[in-house]
Amino acid sequence: MPPRRCTASAGQTGSRDSNVDGVIMQCLSCEEDYEVDDSGTCRECYQEANEAEEELRLEISDLKSKVSFLTLSSPTLDSSTADIVLVAVDDSDAVPIPAHKHILVSRSPVFNAMLENDMEERRSGTIRISDVSDDTLRAFVNYLYTAEASLDNQMACNLLVLGEKYQVKHLKTYCEKYLIAKMNWNKAIANYAFAYQYDCKQLRSASLAVILEKMDLLTQNEYYAELVDTNPRLVVEIYETYIGKQINTAGAF
Amino acid sequence: MPPRRCTASAGQTGSRDSNVDGVIMQCLSCEEDYEVDDSGTCRECYQEANEAEEELRLEISDLKSKVSFLTLSSPTLDSSTADIVLVAVDDSDAVPIPAHKHILVSRSPVFNAMLENDMEERRSGTIRISDVSDDTLRAFVNYLYTAEASLDNQMACNLLVLGEKYQVKHLKTYCEKYLIAKMNWNKAIANYAFAYQYDCKQLRSASLAVILEKMDLLTQNEYYAELVDTNPRLVVEIYETYIGKQINTAGAF
Repeated sequence: MPPRRCTASAGQTGSRDSNVDGVIMQCLSCEEDYEVDDSGTCRECYQEANEAEEELRLEISDLKSKVSFLTLSSPTLDSSTADIVLVAVDDSDAVPIPAHKHILVSRSPVFNAMLENDMEERRSGTIRISDVSDDTLRAFVNYLYTAEASLDNQMACNLLVLGEKYQVKHLKTYCEKYLIAKMNWNKAIANYAFAYQYDCKQLRSASLAVILEKMDLLTQNEYYAELVDTNPRLVVEIYETYIGKQINTAGAF
Repeated sequence: MPPRRCTASAGQTGSRDSNVDGVIMQCLSCEEDYEVDDSGTCRECYQEANEAEEELRLEISDLKSKVSFLTLSSPTLDSSTADIVLVAVDDSDAVPIPAHKHILVSRSPVFNAMLENDMEERRSGTIRISDVSDDTLRAFVNYLYTAEASLDNQMACNLLVLGEKYQVKHLKTYCEKYLIAKMNWNKAIANYAFAYQYDCKQLRSASLAVILEKMDLLTQNEYYAELVDTNPRLVVEIYETYIGKQINTAGAF
Protein backbone atom coordinates (compact mmCIF):
# COMPACT_ATOMS: atom_id res chain seq x y z
CA MET A 1 0.00 0.00 0.00
CA PRO A 2 1.50 3.41 -0.90
CA PRO A 3 1.95 5.86 2.00
CA ARG A 4 -0.96 8.26 2.66
CA ARG A 5 1.09 11.44 2.60
CA CYS A 6 -0.03 14.66 4.19
CA THR A 7 2.16 17.72 3.72
CA ALA A 8 1.23 19.86 6.69
CA SER A 9 3.64 22.72 6.04
CA ALA A 10 2.16 26.15 6.78
CA GLY A 11 0.15 27.42 3.85
CA GLN A 12 0.40 24.10 2.04
CA THR A 13 -2.63 22.10 3.03
CA GLY A 14 -2.80 20.75 -0.54
CA SER A 15 -4.96 17.82 -1.54
CA ARG A 16 -5.17 15.15 1.12
CA ASP A 17 -5.87 11.48 1.09
CA SER A 18 -9.11 11.00 3.01
CA ASN A 19 -7.59 7.95 4.74
CA VAL A 20 -5.70 10.19 7.18
CA ASP A 21 -8.98 11.53 8.60
CA GLY A 22 -9.42 10.59 12.21
CA VAL A 23 -5.75 9.83 12.95
CA ILE A 24 -5.23 11.48 16.32
CA MET A 25 -1.86 12.19 17.90
CA GLN A 26 -0.95 13.63 21.27
CA CYS A 27 1.24 16.74 21.29
CA LEU A 28 4.40 16.20 23.35
CA SER A 29 4.32 19.84 24.44
CA CYS A 30 0.71 20.74 25.39
CA GLU A 31 -0.37 17.08 25.68
CA GLU A 32 -3.59 17.85 23.76
CA ASP A 33 -4.78 15.62 20.94
CA TYR A 34 -4.43 16.89 17.36
CA GLU A 35 -5.15 15.70 13.86
CA VAL A 36 -2.79 15.34 10.91
CA ASP A 37 -3.77 18.74 9.51
CA ASP A 38 -2.63 20.38 12.75
CA SER A 39 0.70 18.60 12.95
CA GLY A 40 3.79 20.66 13.69
CA THR A 41 7.16 19.01 14.15
CA CYS A 42 8.64 15.55 14.34
CA ARG A 43 9.77 14.18 17.69
CA GLU A 44 13.47 14.74 16.99
CA CYS A 45 12.97 18.43 16.20
CA TYR A 46 10.80 18.83 19.30
CA GLN A 47 13.58 17.37 21.46
CA GLU A 48 16.25 19.48 19.75
CA ALA A 49 14.14 22.61 20.22
CA ASN A 50 13.79 21.80 23.91
CA GLU A 51 17.55 21.45 24.28
CA ALA A 52 18.14 24.66 22.32
CA GLU A 53 15.70 26.52 24.57
CA GLU A 54 17.45 25.19 27.65
CA GLU A 55 20.78 26.46 26.28
CA LEU A 56 19.31 29.89 25.58
CA ARG A 57 17.94 30.06 29.13
CA LEU A 58 21.36 29.14 30.53
CA GLU A 59 22.98 31.84 28.39
CA ILE A 60 20.44 34.37 29.70
CA SER A 61 21.18 33.34 33.26
CA ASP A 62 24.95 33.74 32.68
CA LEU A 63 24.47 37.13 31.04
CA LYS A 64 22.21 38.36 33.86
CA SER A 65 24.80 37.36 36.40
CA LYS A 66 27.48 39.18 34.36
CA VAL A 67 25.30 42.32 34.17
CA SER A 68 24.79 42.16 37.90
CA PHE A 69 28.55 41.83 38.49
CA LEU A 70 29.41 44.70 36.14
CA THR A 71 26.70 47.06 37.41
CA LEU A 72 28.15 49.74 39.66
CA SER A 73 26.40 51.41 42.53
CA SER A 74 25.30 54.97 41.91
CA PRO A 75 28.06 57.45 42.87
CA THR A 76 25.48 59.50 44.77
CA LEU A 77 25.23 56.66 47.30
CA ASP A 78 28.91 56.75 48.11
CA SER A 79 30.87 59.74 46.92
CA SER A 80 34.02 59.18 48.98
CA THR A 81 36.09 58.15 45.96
CA ALA A 82 34.52 60.61 43.47
CA ASP A 83 37.01 62.80 41.59
CA ILE A 84 34.62 65.07 39.65
CA VAL A 85 31.16 66.64 39.99
CA LEU A 86 28.47 67.45 37.43
CA VAL A 87 26.15 70.42 37.87
CA ALA A 88 22.89 71.27 36.10
CA VAL A 89 23.68 74.98 35.88
CA ASP A 90 20.22 76.10 34.71
CA ASP A 91 18.44 74.47 37.64
CA SER A 92 18.39 76.76 40.68
CA ASP A 93 17.87 73.75 42.96
CA ALA A 94 20.84 71.83 41.52
CA VAL A 95 23.20 70.08 43.90
CA PRO A 96 26.58 68.96 42.47
CA ILE A 97 26.47 65.28 41.50
CA PRO A 98 29.60 63.31 42.42
CA ALA A 99 31.07 60.96 39.80
CA HIS A 100 34.29 59.31 38.62
CA LYS A 101 36.26 60.54 35.62
CA HIS A 102 37.10 56.93 34.79
CA ILE A 103 33.42 56.03 34.36
CA LEU A 104 32.47 59.16 32.42
CA VAL A 105 35.41 58.62 30.06
CA SER A 106 34.50 54.94 29.56
CA ARG A 107 30.85 55.60 28.78
CA SER A 108 30.98 58.71 26.61
CA PRO A 109 33.39 59.77 23.85
CA VAL A 110 32.38 63.38 24.57
CA PHE A 111 33.37 63.17 28.24
CA ASN A 112 36.47 61.32 27.10
CA ALA A 113 37.57 64.19 24.84
CA MET A 114 36.65 66.72 27.54
CA LEU A 115 38.63 65.01 30.31
CA GLU A 116 41.55 63.61 28.32
CA ASN A 117 42.49 67.05 27.07
CA ASP A 118 43.46 69.76 29.45
CA MET A 119 40.12 71.51 29.33
CA GLU A 120 38.46 73.69 31.93
CA GLU A 121 36.42 70.70 33.22
CA ARG A 122 39.53 68.67 33.95
CA ARG A 123 41.27 71.49 35.77
CA SER A 124 38.25 72.54 37.83
CA GLY A 125 36.91 69.03 38.54
CA THR A 126 33.42 70.33 37.62
CA ILE A 127 31.38 69.64 34.50
CA ARG A 128 28.70 72.32 34.01
CA ILE A 129 25.75 71.12 31.95
CA SER A 130 23.13 73.53 30.65
CA ASP A 131 19.51 73.03 29.49
CA VAL A 132 18.88 70.16 31.86
CA SER A 133 17.16 69.73 35.22
CA ASP A 134 18.97 68.37 38.25
CA ASP A 135 16.63 65.33 38.21
CA THR A 136 17.45 64.48 34.61
CA LEU A 137 21.19 64.94 35.08
CA ARG A 138 21.08 62.74 38.18
CA ALA A 139 19.21 60.02 36.22
CA PHE A 140 21.77 60.39 33.41
CA VAL A 141 24.77 59.94 35.72
CA ASN A 142 23.04 57.05 37.42
CA TYR A 143 22.51 55.35 34.04
CA LEU A 144 26.24 55.54 33.29
CA TYR A 145 26.82 53.36 36.38
CA THR A 146 23.83 51.03 36.27
CA ALA A 147 22.44 50.92 32.67
CA GLU A 148 19.01 51.44 34.22
CA ALA A 149 16.64 54.39 34.52
CA SER A 150 13.13 54.92 35.81
CA LEU A 151 11.35 56.34 32.75
CA ASP A 152 8.17 58.14 31.86
CA ASN A 153 7.62 59.78 28.48
CA GLN A 154 9.24 63.08 29.49
CA MET A 155 12.26 61.48 31.19
CA ALA A 156 12.80 59.18 28.18
CA CYS A 157 12.92 62.26 25.90
CA ASN A 158 15.18 64.18 28.29
CA LEU A 159 17.64 61.29 28.65
CA LEU A 160 17.60 60.58 24.93
CA VAL A 161 18.67 64.20 24.33
CA LEU A 162 21.59 63.76 26.77
CA GLY A 163 22.38 60.36 25.19
CA GLU A 164 22.66 62.11 21.81
CA LYS A 165 24.66 65.07 23.18
CA TYR A 166 27.19 62.87 25.00
CA GLN A 167 27.09 60.03 22.47
CA VAL A 168 25.94 57.40 24.95
CA LYS A 169 24.40 55.13 22.32
CA HIS A 170 23.17 52.52 24.77
CA LEU A 171 21.10 55.11 26.64
CA LYS A 172 19.73 56.53 23.39
CA THR A 173 18.57 53.07 22.27
CA TYR A 174 17.14 52.37 25.74
CA CYS A 175 15.00 55.52 25.62
CA GLU A 176 14.03 54.97 21.98
CA LYS A 177 12.75 51.48 22.83
CA TYR A 178 10.69 52.90 25.68
CA LEU A 179 9.13 55.56 23.44
CA ILE A 180 8.32 52.97 20.76
CA ALA A 181 6.74 50.64 23.34
CA LYS A 182 4.54 53.48 24.65
CA MET A 183 3.65 54.86 21.20
CA ASN A 184 0.06 55.68 20.31
CA TRP A 185 -1.66 57.87 17.75
CA ASN A 186 -1.81 60.91 20.07
CA LYS A 187 1.95 60.87 20.57
CA ALA A 188 2.90 59.82 17.03
CA ILE A 189 3.43 63.27 15.45
CA ALA A 190 5.33 64.64 18.44
CA ASN A 191 7.49 61.49 18.46
CA TYR A 192 8.01 61.75 14.70
CA ALA A 193 9.30 65.33 14.99
CA PHE A 194 11.42 64.44 18.02
CA ALA A 195 12.91 61.40 16.25
CA TYR A 196 13.81 63.59 13.26
CA GLN A 197 15.51 66.16 15.51
CA TYR A 198 17.63 63.60 17.37
CA ASP A 199 18.26 61.20 14.52
CA CYS A 200 16.38 58.16 15.93
CA LYS A 201 15.71 55.95 12.92
CA GLN A 202 13.67 53.28 14.71
CA LEU A 203 11.45 55.76 16.53
CA ARG A 204 10.94 57.74 13.33
CA SER A 205 9.87 54.70 11.39
CA ALA A 206 7.59 53.45 14.19
CA SER A 207 5.92 56.89 14.52
CA LEU A 208 5.40 57.17 10.79
CA ALA A 209 3.77 53.74 10.67
CA VAL A 210 1.26 54.81 13.36
CA ILE A 211 0.56 58.12 11.59
CA LEU A 212 -0.07 56.40 8.26
CA GLU A 213 -2.65 54.08 9.84
CA LYS A 214 -5.09 56.99 10.37
CA MET A 215 -4.36 59.52 7.64
CA ASP A 216 -7.98 60.69 7.66
CA LEU A 217 -7.48 61.99 11.22
CA LEU A 218 -4.02 63.49 10.64
CA THR A 219 -5.07 67.15 10.62
CA GLN A 220 -6.96 66.64 13.90
CA ASN A 221 -3.87 65.47 15.81
CA GLU A 222 -3.06 68.10 18.45
CA TYR A 223 0.56 68.38 17.25
CA TYR A 224 -0.27 68.64 13.52
CA ALA A 225 -0.70 72.42 13.26
CA GLU A 226 2.46 72.94 15.33
CA LEU A 227 4.48 70.68 13.03
CA VAL A 228 3.17 72.49 9.94
CA ASP A 229 4.44 75.73 11.53
CA THR A 230 7.77 74.49 12.80
CA ASN A 231 8.82 71.92 10.21
CA PRO A 232 6.51 71.79 7.17
CA ARG A 233 9.04 69.65 5.26
CA LEU A 234 8.40 66.82 7.73
CA VAL A 235 4.64 67.12 7.09
CA VAL A 236 5.33 66.96 3.37
CA GLU A 237 7.32 63.76 3.94
CA ILE A 238 4.33 62.17 5.69
CA TYR A 239 2.06 62.93 2.69
CA GLU A 240 4.72 61.82 0.20
CA THR A 241 5.19 58.49 2.01
CA TYR A 242 1.42 57.96 2.14
CA ILE A 243 0.94 58.67 -1.56
CA GLY A 244 3.97 56.55 -2.43
CA LYS A 245 2.47 53.60 -0.56
CA GLN A 246 -0.89 54.06 -2.30
CA ILE A 247 0.82 53.98 -5.70
CA ASN A 248 2.79 50.83 -4.73
CA THR A 249 -0.34 49.11 -3.44
CA ALA A 250 -2.28 50.02 -6.60
CA GLY A 251 0.64 48.74 -8.73
CA ALA A 252 0.48 45.40 -6.97
CA PHE A 253 -2.97 44.68 -8.46
CA MET B 1 -15.84 5.77 12.17
CA PRO B 2 -14.06 6.13 15.54
CA PRO B 3 -10.77 8.04 15.49
CA ARG B 4 -7.63 5.95 15.05
CA ARG B 5 -5.79 7.35 18.03
CA CYS B 6 -2.04 7.23 18.43
CA THR B 7 -0.54 8.51 21.65
CA ALA B 8 2.95 9.41 20.64
CA SER B 9 4.10 10.79 24.00
CA ALA B 10 7.70 9.92 24.89
CA GLY B 11 7.91 6.45 26.40
CA GLN B 12 4.27 5.72 25.60
CA THR B 13 4.18 4.05 22.23
CA GLY B 14 1.37 1.83 23.51
CA SER B 15 -0.76 -0.33 21.27
CA ARG B 16 -1.52 1.24 17.93
CA ASP B 17 -4.25 0.87 15.37
CA SER B 18 -2.63 -0.54 12.25
CA ASN B 19 -4.66 1.92 10.14
CA VAL B 20 -2.22 4.74 10.99
CA ASP B 21 0.64 2.89 9.27
CA GLY B 22 1.88 4.78 6.28
CA VAL B 23 0.46 8.19 7.26
CA ILE B 24 3.32 10.55 6.43
CA MET B 25 3.59 14.14 7.61
CA GLN B 26 6.16 16.81 6.87
CA CYS B 27 7.93 18.39 9.84
CA LEU B 28 7.53 22.18 9.86
CA SER B 29 11.01 22.55 11.31
CA CYS B 30 13.38 20.20 9.44
CA GLU B 31 10.97 19.72 6.51
CA GLU B 32 11.65 15.97 6.53
CA ASP B 33 8.82 13.43 6.31
CA TYR B 34 7.90 11.51 9.45
CA GLU B 35 5.39 8.88 10.52
CA VAL B 36 2.84 9.02 13.33
CA ASP B 37 5.18 7.19 15.73
CA ASP B 38 7.76 9.96 15.32
CA SER B 39 5.35 12.83 15.83
CA GLY B 40 6.36 15.61 18.19
CA THR B 41 4.16 18.67 18.62
CA CYS B 42 1.03 20.18 17.18
CA ARG B 43 1.28 23.16 14.87
CA GLU B 44 0.17 25.65 17.52
CA CYS B 45 2.88 24.56 19.96
CA TYR B 46 5.48 24.69 17.18
CA GLN B 47 4.51 28.27 16.40
CA GLU B 48 4.47 29.25 20.07
CA ALA B 49 7.89 27.65 20.59
CA ASN B 50 9.22 29.64 17.64
CA GLU B 51 7.93 32.89 19.11
CA ALA B 52 9.31 32.01 22.55
CA GLU B 53 12.72 31.28 21.01
CA GLU B 54 12.65 34.58 19.18
CA GLU B 55 11.92 36.38 22.47
CA LEU B 56 14.79 34.58 24.21
CA ARG B 57 17.15 35.58 21.40
CA LEU B 58 16.03 39.21 21.69
CA GLU B 59 16.61 39.10 25.44
CA ILE B 60 20.11 37.70 24.84
CA SER B 61 20.84 40.45 22.36
CA ASP B 62 19.68 43.12 24.87
CA LEU B 63 21.74 41.58 27.66
CA LYS B 64 24.84 41.35 25.48
CA SER B 65 24.51 44.99 24.59
CA LYS B 66 24.11 45.84 28.30
CA VAL B 67 27.21 43.80 29.18
CA SER B 68 29.14 45.59 26.46
CA PHE B 69 27.99 48.99 27.80
CA LEU B 70 28.84 48.13 31.40
CA THR B 71 32.23 46.56 30.63
CA LEU B 72 35.09 48.90 31.51
CA SER B 73 38.42 49.06 29.79
CA SER B 74 41.32 47.60 31.73
CA PRO B 75 42.94 50.25 33.96
CA THR B 76 46.36 49.17 32.67
CA LEU B 77 45.41 50.63 29.27
CA ASP B 78 44.74 54.08 30.67
CA SER B 79 45.96 54.78 34.16
CA SER B 80 45.57 58.57 34.11
CA THR B 81 42.57 58.51 36.46
CA ALA B 82 43.80 55.64 38.70
CA ASP B 83 43.85 56.42 42.43
CA ILE B 84 45.44 53.23 43.79
CA VAL B 85 47.95 50.54 42.76
CA LEU B 86 48.14 46.81 43.51
CA VAL B 87 51.48 45.05 43.81
CA ALA B 88 52.29 41.32 43.78
CA VAL B 89 54.91 41.61 46.52
CA ASP B 90 56.30 38.08 46.18
CA ASP B 91 57.01 38.45 42.45
CA SER B 92 60.41 40.06 41.85
CA ASP B 93 59.27 41.16 38.38
CA ALA B 94 56.10 42.81 39.66
CA VAL B 95 55.14 46.22 38.30
CA PRO B 96 52.48 48.16 40.25
CA ILE B 97 49.05 47.73 38.63
CA PRO B 98 46.96 50.91 38.48
CA ALA B 99 43.30 50.69 39.49
CA HIS B 100 40.37 52.69 40.88
CA LYS B 101 39.25 52.44 44.49
CA HIS B 102 35.66 52.84 43.31
CA ILE B 103 35.85 49.67 41.19
CA LEU B 104 37.69 47.58 43.80
CA VAL B 105 35.16 48.60 46.46
CA SER B 106 32.21 47.78 44.15
CA ARG B 107 33.49 44.34 43.20
CA SER B 108 34.86 42.99 46.48
CA PRO B 109 33.57 43.25 50.05
CA VAL B 110 37.16 42.66 51.22
CA PHE B 111 38.53 45.63 49.27
CA ASN B 112 35.50 47.58 50.46
CA ALA B 113 36.34 46.97 54.12
CA MET B 114 40.02 47.66 53.45
CA LEU B 115 39.42 50.98 51.69
CA GLU B 116 36.39 52.26 53.60
CA ASN B 117 38.24 52.07 56.87
CA ASP B 118 41.34 54.10 57.45
CA MET B 119 43.71 51.22 56.88
CA GLU B 120 47.30 51.30 55.68
CA GLU B 121 46.19 50.58 52.08
CA ARG B 122 43.96 53.63 51.98
CA ARG B 123 46.61 55.94 53.38
CA SER B 124 49.42 54.67 51.16
CA GLY B 125 47.38 54.19 47.98
CA THR B 126 49.03 50.78 47.57
CA ILE B 127 47.52 47.33 48.12
CA ARG B 128 50.27 44.73 48.66
CA ILE B 129 49.17 41.20 47.77
CA SER B 130 51.28 38.17 48.70
CA ASP B 131 51.42 34.62 47.33
CA VAL B 132 50.48 35.65 43.81
CA SER B 133 52.36 36.26 40.57
CA ASP B 134 52.24 39.58 38.75
CA ASP B 135 50.49 37.84 35.81
CA THR B 136 47.74 36.44 38.02
CA LEU B 137 47.19 39.72 39.85
CA ARG B 138 47.01 41.56 36.53
CA ALA B 139 44.41 39.05 35.25
CA PHE B 140 42.49 39.45 38.53
CA VAL B 141 42.37 43.26 38.31
CA ASN B 142 41.44 43.02 34.65
CA TYR B 143 38.53 40.72 35.54
CA LEU B 144 37.15 43.27 37.98
CA TYR B 145 36.76 45.68 35.05
CA THR B 146 35.75 43.32 32.25
CA ALA B 147 34.29 40.11 33.76
CA GLU B 148 36.55 38.22 31.36
CA ALA B 149 39.82 36.30 31.72
CA SER B 150 41.97 34.20 29.46
CA LEU B 151 42.13 30.89 31.33
CA ASP B 152 44.11 27.70 31.35
CA ASN B 153 43.89 25.17 34.19
CA GLN B 154 46.55 26.89 36.30
CA MET B 155 45.19 30.40 35.80
CA ALA B 156 41.65 29.21 36.62
CA CYS B 157 42.94 27.80 39.94
CA ASN B 158 45.00 30.92 40.69
CA LEU B 159 42.11 33.27 40.00
CA LEU B 160 39.67 31.10 41.93
CA VAL B 161 41.96 31.40 44.96
CA LEU B 162 41.91 35.21 44.62
CA GLY B 163 38.15 35.13 44.02
CA GLU B 164 37.76 33.27 47.33
CA LYS B 165 40.22 35.51 49.20
CA TYR B 166 38.59 38.77 48.03
CA GLN B 167 35.04 37.35 47.91
CA VAL B 168 34.53 38.02 44.21
CA LYS B 169 31.85 35.37 43.76
CA HIS B 170 31.36 35.95 40.06
CA LEU B 171 35.04 35.24 39.37
CA LYS B 172 34.97 32.14 41.55
CA THR B 173 31.98 30.74 39.66
CA TYR B 174 33.59 31.67 36.32
CA CYS B 175 36.74 29.68 37.19
CA GLU B 176 34.77 26.81 38.68
CA LYS B 177 32.77 26.47 35.44
CA TYR B 178 35.99 26.40 33.45
CA LEU B 179 37.49 23.66 35.64
CA ILE B 180 34.29 21.59 35.40
CA ALA B 181 34.21 21.97 31.60
CA LYS B 182 37.84 20.80 31.35
CA MET B 183 37.47 17.98 33.90
CA ASN B 184 38.78 14.50 33.15
CA TRP B 185 39.79 11.49 35.21
CA ASN B 186 43.45 12.55 35.46
CA LYS B 187 42.51 15.89 36.99
CA ALA B 188 39.58 14.65 39.09
CA ILE B 189 41.40 13.95 42.39
CA ALA B 190 43.43 17.15 42.25
CA ASN B 191 40.24 19.09 41.48
CA TYR B 192 38.40 17.30 44.29
CA ALA B 193 41.03 18.30 46.85
CA PHE B 194 41.19 21.84 45.47
CA ALA B 195 37.38 22.18 45.54
CA TYR B 196 37.36 21.04 49.17
CA GLN B 197 40.03 23.57 50.12
CA TYR B 198 38.27 26.53 48.48
CA ASP B 199 34.70 25.49 49.20
CA CYS B 200 33.55 24.97 45.59
CA LYS B 201 30.45 22.80 45.84
CA GLN B 202 29.82 22.36 42.10
CA LEU B 203 33.43 21.47 41.32
CA ARG B 204 33.58 19.09 44.24
CA SER B 205 30.48 17.25 43.14
CA ALA B 206 31.59 17.13 39.48
CA SER B 207 35.04 15.77 40.46
CA LEU B 208 33.53 13.15 42.73
CA ALA B 209 31.21 11.96 39.96
CA VAL B 210 34.19 11.46 37.63
CA ILE B 211 36.20 9.66 40.35
CA LEU B 212 33.30 7.28 41.12
CA GLU B 213 33.04 6.28 37.46
CA LYS B 214 36.38 4.45 37.62
CA MET B 215 36.80 3.28 41.21
CA ASP B 216 38.88 0.29 40.07
CA LEU B 217 41.58 2.71 38.84
CA LEU B 218 41.43 5.07 41.82
CA THR B 219 44.67 4.01 43.47
CA GLN B 220 46.51 4.44 40.16
CA ASN B 221 45.60 8.11 39.80
CA GLU B 222 48.80 10.17 40.12
CA TYR B 223 47.28 12.37 42.84
CA TYR B 224 45.88 9.50 44.94
CA ALA B 225 48.94 8.80 47.10
CA GLU B 226 49.42 12.52 47.69
CA LEU B 227 45.82 12.92 48.83
CA VAL B 228 46.13 9.95 51.19
CA ASP B 229 49.14 11.73 52.72
CA THR B 230 47.74 15.24 52.87
CA ASN B 231 44.05 14.72 53.51
CA PRO B 232 43.12 11.09 54.20
CA ARG B 233 39.66 12.13 55.43
CA LEU B 234 38.83 13.22 51.86
CA VAL B 235 39.89 9.80 50.55
CA VAL B 236 37.67 8.18 53.16
CA GLU B 237 34.79 10.32 51.91
CA ILE B 238 35.30 9.02 48.37
CA TYR B 239 35.09 5.40 49.58
CA GLU B 240 32.12 6.15 51.83
CA THR B 241 30.21 7.78 48.96
CA TYR B 242 31.00 4.84 46.68
CA ILE B 243 29.83 2.24 49.19
CA GLY B 244 26.77 4.35 50.02
CA LYS B 245 25.79 4.39 46.35
CA GLN B 246 26.29 0.64 46.04
CA ILE B 247 23.98 0.04 48.98
CA ASN B 248 21.34 2.40 47.52
CA THR B 249 21.55 0.72 44.12
CA ALA B 250 21.25 -2.75 45.67
CA GLY B 251 18.29 -1.56 47.76
CA ALA B 252 16.49 -0.41 44.62
CA PHE B 253 16.18 -4.00 43.35
